[in-house]
Amino acid sequence: FEAEADRDCPDAETPDVGIIMGSDSDLDTMYGAYEALSELGFEEVTDYDDPPESRFSFETFVISAHRTPELMYAYGETARERGLDVLVAGAGGKSADLPNMTASIAYPLPVIGVPVQEKSLDSVVGMPTGAPLVAVDAGKSFNAALSAVQILSRAHPELEDRLEAYHDGLQDGVGAVSARLHELGTERFREER
Amino acid sequence: FEAEADRDCPDAETPDVGIIMGSDSDLDTMYGAYEALSELGFEEVTDYDDPPESRFSFETFVISAHRTPELMYAYGETARERGLDVLVAGAGGKSADLPNMTASIAYPLPVIGVPVQEKSLDSVVGMPTGAPLVAVDAGKSFNAALSAVQILSRAHPELEDRLEAYHDGLQDGVGAVSARLHELGTERFREER
Amino acid sequence: FEAEADRDCPDAETPDVGIIMGSDSDLDTMYGAYEALSELGFEEVTDYDDPPESRFSFETFVISAHRTPELMYAYGETARERGLDVLVAGAGGKSADLPNMTASIAYPLPVIGVPVQEKSLDSVVGMPTGAPLVAVDAGKSFNAALSAVQILSRAHPELEDRLEAYHDGLQDGVGAVSARLHELGTERFREER
Amino acid sequence: FEAEADRDCPDAETPDVGIIMGSDSDLDTMYGAYEALSELGFEEVTDYDDPPESRFSFETFVISAHRTPELMYAYGETARERGLDVLVAGAGGKSADLPNMTASIAYPLPVIGVPVQEKSLDSVVGMPTGAPLVAVDAGKSFNAALSAVQILSRAHPELEDRLEAYHDGLQDGVGAVSARLHELGTERFREER
Amino acid sequence: FEAEADRDCPDAETPDVGIIMGSDSDLDTMYGAYEALSELGFEEVTDYDDPPESRFSFETFVISAHRTPELMYAYGETARERGLDVLVAGAGGKSADLPNMTASIAYPLPVIGVPVQEKSLDSVVGMPTGAPLVAVDAGKSFNAALSAVQILSRAHPELEDRLEAYHDGLQDGVGAVSARLHELGTERFREER
Amino acid sequence: FEAEADRDCPDAETPDVGIIMGSDSDLDTMYGAYEALSELGFEEVTDYDDPPESRFSFETFVISAHRTPELMYAYGETARERGLDVLVAGAGGKSADLPNMTASIAYPLPVIGVPVQEKSLDSVVGMPTGAPLVAVDAGKSFNAALSAVQILSRAHPELEDRLEAYHDGLQDGVGAVSARLHELGTERFREER
Amino acid sequence: FEAEADRDCPDAETPDVGIIMGSDSDLDTMYGAYEALSELGFEEVTDYDDPPESRFSFETFVISAHRTPELMYAYGETARERGLDVLVAGAGGKSADLPNMTASIAYPLPVIGVPVQEKSLDSVVGMPTGAPLVAVDAGKSFNAALSAVQILSRAHPELEDRLEAYHDGLQDGVGAVSARLHELGTERFREER
Amino acid sequence: FEAEADRDCPDAETPDVGIIMGSDSDLDTMYGAYEALSELGFEEVTDYDDPPESRFSFETFVISAHRTPELMYAYGETARERGLDVLVAGAGGKSADLPNMTASIAYPLPVIGVPVQEKSLDSVVGMPTGAPLVAVDAGKSFNAALSAVQILSRAHPELEDRLEAYHDGLQDGVGAVSARLHELGTERFREER
Repeated sequence: FEAEADRDCPDAETPDVGIIMGSDSDLDTMYGAYEALSELGFEEVTDYDDPPESRFSFETFVISAHRTPELMYAYGETARERGLDVLVAGAGGKSADLPNMTASIAYPLPVIGVPVQEKSLDSVVGMPTGAPLVAVDAGKSFNAALSAVQILSRAHPELEDRLEAYHDGLQDGVGAVSARLHELGTERFREER
Repeated sequence: FEAEADRDCPDAETPDVGIIMGSDSDLDTMYGAYEALSELGFEEVTDYDDPPESRFSFETFVISAHRTPELMYAYGETARERGLDVLVAGAGGKSADLPNMTASIAYPLPVIGVPVQEKSLDSVVGMPTGAPLVAVDAGKSFNAALSAVQILSRAHPELEDRLEAYHDGLQDGVGAVSARLHELGTERFREER
Repeated sequence: FEAEADRDCPDAETPDVGIIMGSDSDLDTMYGAYEALSELGFEEVTDYDDPPESRFSFETFVISAHRTPELMYAYGETARERGLDVLVAGAGGKSADLPNMTASIAYPLPVIGVPVQEKSLDSVVGMPTGAPLVAVDAGKSFNAALSAVQILSRAHPELEDRLEAYHDGLQDGVGAVSARLHELGTERFREER
Repeated sequence: FEAEADRDCPDAETPDVGIIMGSDSDLDTMYGAYEALSELGFEEVTDYDDPPESRFSFETFVISAHRTPELMYAYGETARERGLDVLVAGAGGKSADLPNMTASIAYPLPVIGVPVQEKSLDSVVGMPTGAPLVAVDAGKSFNAALSAVQILSRAHPELEDRLEAYHDGLQDGVGAVSARLHELGTERFREER
Repeated sequence: FEAEADRDCPDAETPDVGIIMGSDSDLDTMYGAYEALSELGFEEVTDYDDPPESRFSFETFVISAHRTPELMYAYGETARERGLDVLVAGAGGKSADLPNMTASIAYPLPVIGVPVQEKSLDSVVGMPTGAPLVAVDAGKSFNAALSAVQILSRAHPELEDRLEAYHDGLQDGVGAVSARLHELGTERFREER
Repeated sequence: FEAEADRDCPDAETPDVGIIMGSDSDLDTMYGAYEALSELGFEEVTDYDDPPESRFSFETFVISAHRTPELMYAYGETARERGLDVLVAGAGGKSADLPNMTASIAYPLPVIGVPVQEKSLDSVVGMPTGAPLVAVDAGKSFNAALSAVQILSRAHPELEDRLEAYHDGLQDGVGAVSARLHELGTERFREER
Repeated sequence: FEAEADRDCPDAETPDVGIIMGSDSDLDTMYGAYEALSELGFEEVTDYDDPPESRFSFETFVISAHRTPELMYAYGETARERGLDVLVAGAGGKSADLPNMTASIAYPLPVIGVPVQEKSLDSVVGMPTGAPLVAVDAGKSFNAALSAVQILSRAHPELEDRLEAYHDGLQDGVGAVSARLHELGTERFREER
Repeated sequence: FEAEADRDCPDAETPDVGIIMGSDSDLDTMYGAYEALSELGFEEVTDYDDPPESRFSFETFVISAHRTPELMYAYGETARERGLDVLVAGAGGKSADLPNMTASIAYPLPVIGVPVQEKSLDSVVGMPTGAPLVAVDAGKSFNAALSAVQILSRAHPELEDRLEAYHDGLQDGVGAVSARLHELGTERFREER
């Protein structure tokens, strides 16, 4: 598999965001990143020879820092050459080393760490001076993907518009609920939920 | 002062990075951001009418979320128009709301939160789904600035070179210490420090 | 919706207590405030043009600090003019900024913060010197409403009587249970529950 | 001493705020309450037969929940009759029972608890449903006194003006520091401190 | 009810151990104390006029520190005169004041505190110097009762024998399980459970 | 040394309280037990052939659970035969096993555990069901000794008088400080300290 | 039972690894050690007179530090003579003393501690200087057994091959999942699980 | 430097124990490993061409997981071929990845992780199932080295004798202090320290 990964790497050009996680048991938590990117019009690359048509895309892999350290190294080292612009890396457990090690190996590519469990937060966020990594809260893969798009939007202003459109919808939703709660009153609002 | 801030805003064009903190007592901790940006060739803008000559620059302000909420709103709302590309916001205490609120107001600009104290970490990192903010570890303003430059480097490849040059120096330093420790032996290495 | 909120504000005069929360998913936890105020004879205002008849009343809104910062600002800034005397603000997550920011914006109105989750407590209680907010324990919206009435009772002595009547009932209940446990003995008391 | 306390109680009429603490070793932490009340024009009552001239005043006592439970009962039970409107109670240690028990005994008088140490916070804030107490963060006796005045201001509008004047000064201070930091630049600002 | 409690107090002579708890919702956790005392031959007193025949007995009450402070005071103050030798007091929540305040009021009677929840432990164990209380771990009311009997056994050597008989049974049980696990092997032992 | 310990054991009859600690570095913390017992008229036994004249006495040893497990076993197993009535055992670190193991070995003798450091608390208090131990808060060896005397007082009523006399002095002290603070006022009280 | 244990001890020669736990309720957690050793070709010894044929074997016992201290001493003291090379000891609760005490008694035999619950970790890992014990994370009995085999492999190189074979299988598994996730894409991968 | 490390690796044969740490600022904490190995007769290898004469030896390096990931990979991958039998790896911070990653890369060599700070413990101990690492408590590099020698002693029985000799000295020391404290009494023992 590692040989295959190496072979793939030079071929791949398209994906802008790389989503990696330590185990497929993390996928339910990391699914938020998929949702956010899909919401913002990104498509998933599953075949490097047949990339999606949309301008922005992402790829998804399972890589275990502690069980497949060579694979992690291969992925991190080739990430920039393969055209990735930002990585979203999630890991669980108390030694959630995948985001941190990938940030060190893929440097200077920006890496956003997602602690898959509450107890993974300290391990993800705690990088030493000189080794940058940014983190979101435990389980917040959706926000990590939003942040990834914020980063991409520095070079691609059209993404700012997508981010704003998403946010307008969010605010309208809160406003509608607030008006409804106020008008129905607490008791009726709860009954009608 | 708020009037002055409003007046300044449209004038300012240059700074790429905005550094804000909740109190000037946070400055010793936030000084790392100044150091990192200076190390990477950024200059500080202190007079909008007389910007520095270097291509990349930053500005520094004290803004308190709880004592000067209007000032925070004014800064966040105008940040994008004033040409800022990324904000580094630090706050202490357990209700370290400055990074979080600024991220909400300045959205979709990326904001990197710096918990000034260990106990500020949870408050900084804990954003709800849909409201993105990325965080570094408590006190790691140096890393926050490195991450800010990583973000800028997506649109400005020359910054990648600066980041790599910095990192090469860092690695050489570790290598030299390691060789010295190994060759002198533990006892002599400690004596000669 | 924000425009509507602004329009509402000057019209509203009656509500003495404002209950706000960061999301309607907080409503089950914040329902305690509704229960306590109802128990003490307060009525909920759902239509400002048709206020309830009782002397004391309250209103309820959903406002998100991080997703609708402008709405929060509008609510906080107009609270005093709209005749509110005390706010009960609940928020969940680790960055539970709604109570804190509302306290800063609505100052000098007293605000009682309700951490909706245990992990929200630190963020709610941790205000810096000079920015007052008082908090209750996680989930204790019932107590927050009792405290709000204690505050109102400084200017409205009839509320002291209501508070005492409530408390007498509470004490009688504990006393009755204690007598029953003692007389039946532990085993039979458990069986007959 | 308890007899003396009982004798004092009926005599006392004036103090609006009662400050109590579990030990005189808490006084350095509780001194913030003294500072805040003094800043807002309150005077300390030290002789009930010779009350201060200012309209608003406070008194200060040491009362230990665990070492002098009778004294605590006497103080709490007579607080309302003695004309007190709000109590600020501070205690240290992990079993910081003074604020909690006083809130139960002095009910329905509002009590603001001040955890004197970080480890006192849980014990102070954790009241059961039906037994109200509001708390500030560990060591924030200054804020507790501001909150006490916010409560008093519900019945005494002139106190609102004092609170606003205090806050305006606070905001001007932050603004001045921010302007100075921005204009001098980080390096010079630090040097000139 | 309080009047009744006062009336009862002088009458009661027999119970050696007093079990009190903050709420009848604590009874499932405190039931361990009932079990341990029953196992060691103690009987529960439910009618002071008709005490049980066994030499050693106990009584059980619900007393809330925060909702019925007067009742707590009455119980603690009369405990020694009523012939109690040791109290086992359980309370939940973060402000688990019942054991602590009872220890202060009933002093010099020994009081064993039972934190009903994990979060009650700090509040129960954290007494200041000079105010003794001993605690068991969260939920360990069974052990609290064993400790109470250890204390009584200082004056009543026959209780030492009961404690040893209980312990011999416990050790035999562990030994039997260990032999069975070893002889069956892990797999079969698990199947046959 | 162990042989000596064994030899000593049958000879010793007098000490009522045994104070043991895991290391002589714990002595500063455990010194509180010495102070409390001395305050209450207990004398330290240093030579079993020449016991002190006072009716009540104690002895002090260093015993390490992890470095001298045999010594711990020997001490615990012979404690009851040697006439000890209650043990006060202190240990530091996170694996503070000395109190717990001694309680298991010396059973049914009551053992009061003193966590020498805050981080030792969980390890000391956390005994499984069926293995009793009571604990005081971290560092509270003074209170542990008071509790030991409360236990002894069940069989020796004269110790109740000593405990009350100590407590009266304590209460007078708090009362005097409280009166002085109130009469001088906060500012002068602080100056004159 | 203890007599039986003593009798067994000199007879036993074969088992290389001893697995002990504080209660049979720990067996589900400790079952991972059984699985790992079985996976690596170890067999369980259930009858010392009829040892298994495989070269490497293990035994399993329940031993409670607090309820059966004599049994723990007997096991630890005889472990080396009985031919054991490494012990895996698991315990739950906050006072998880079994691994620690066994490490002290069986010294210089290496002992790997398994905290059966998260709250047992501190107690297991926290040994004082001079008393060695190594620990794995809470619940990780599988890893403890792998580490035990790593230790044995220092003297038995054939075990290195087994460890590598196990690891190769593990890596292939991660690689296969990763390829599948990438090729199917996130949505289809989740559906087909 | 990395080239040099690679060149060195095949040459090196002698060291039995490899001590690595993330930064030379960790050396004061890791010095305990040097002390323990020296106490047990191990010598430090500083020149591979001129190894020490003693049978057992160790080497020491600084390797940073996050700043020099290539160096870490090179060290871990060649460790077994270079003849090392066990590694002691220390790291500080919350993302203490050096021990964990080295354990994954150097597998199946046993690695003992030393958390250099208390906050490093979770990150060091928290390995996922299938990736073994054993840990000691924060700062306990001395114990880590003792454990390393316990591991080596499985194949080298003469090391068992050294370990026992060390332990006998330790026990004599505790015994002597205990006897002295008991004979002098608490007061005099403290004075004479």
